[in-house]
Amino acid sequence: MPRLDFWYEFASTYSYPAAMRIERIAADAGIEVAWRPFLLGPIFKTQGWDNSPFNLYSAKGRYMWRDVERLCAAEDLAFRRPDPFPQPSLAAARMALTQAVTPLRAEFSRRIFLAEFAEGLPIADEDVLSGILGELGLEPRAIVAEAGTDRIKSRLREETAEAMRLGIFGAPSLVTEDGELFWGNDRLEAALSWAAQ
Amino acid sequence: MPRLDFWYEFASTYSYPAAMRIERIAADAGIEVAWRPFLLGPIFKTQGWDNSPFNLYSAKGRYMWRDVERLCAAEDLAFRRPDPFPQPSLAAARMALTQAVTPLRAEFSRRIFLAEFAEGLPIADEDVLSGILGELGLEPRAIVAEAGTDRIKSRLREETAEAMRLGIFGAPSLVTEDGELFWGNDRLEAALSWAAQ
Repeated sequence: MPRLDFWYEFASTYSYPAAMRIERIAADAGIEVAWRPFLLGPIFKTQGWDNSPFNLYSAKGRYMWRDVERLCAAEDLAFRRPDPFPQPSLAAARMALTQAVTPLRAEFSRRIFLAEFAEGLPIADEDVLSGILGELGLEPRAIVAEAGTDRIKSRLREETAEAMRLGIFGAPSLVTEDGELFWGNDRLEAALSWAAQ
Repeated sequence: MPRLDFWYEFASTYSYPAAMRIERIAADAGIEVAWRPFLLGPIFKTQGWDNSPFNLYSAKGRYMWRDVERLCAAEDLAFRRPDPFPQPSLAAARMALTQAVTPLRAEFSRRIFLAEFAEGLPIADEDVLSGILGELGLEPRAIVAEAGTDRIKSRLREETAEAMRLGIFGAPSLVTEDGELFWGNDRLEAALSWAAQ
């Protein structure tokens, strides 16, 4: 089966609807999805931004909130604006890369996005994270410990460096096996078509 | 017939495929399109940018060129990267607002976009502009004169100020009669659906 790499950031608003629908449309297209969490912060820093561009550029930010609200309504997804935005996503991203979470990474990721953007919960909160791990039948304490290891810390740094190397500058981004880059929830279909060629 | 305002900038890459397809899909949806050229430069200045963000942010720029190339290929539109980018669009925008061009503004605008992005011609060049006006059966000298009047100059400034007031921060943008804003060539369909409701 052809594979599509789905690069997402847990703090990213547009990554939420993309995460909720990608498996459905990928299955229809016969494409396997590789879930690749990364951090946008270090990439934004190289562009001179110390915050989300949606906070730095107010017209863009106002538009984004309305646009995501409309997109979620069209997809029948609940939507709440998290406060603060962006949410600190480091803990969730590290957890997603642990060995224990890896087989359940897609489901773990969707639950993080739902907690954050449907329920408005703080995704760096230990109780929120432990609650999600528990729902998945995982042992929170072991995963918190693994997420804090140097191996996982450097794994996330490497994934972020790889995203940058691929030309990624925002989330979600899609990369096909032949290196074609697509940016945005609104490019999922185009990326899947490309991957299926 | 419901109306959709199509805000576009002659230097904007994504405005090109949008301009080439909007009348076709608007006709299918039973929507009237109001063609509203404006300048992005003054809006970018308020965001602290003295150049196109595609030039300021290199990863974003590299992606945009590839993305527009793919979009144009999918729409069977020729595409050439203009040099320099962005092209100076002031003269074309002023001409589009003259009384003589107004009844033919959509066709004038499409021909400017084709000259710039299909043929790679400099759209501030008097011969290029006169050639397009001549093809439309218009008298270039009278239009150059009208485009240079204070009335037209302030008309374009007012249109740009109105775009900013509407929350526009990029091009193309679509605004419905009830003030709903959509940004991007990839939001044409959503804007037309909203306008048709």
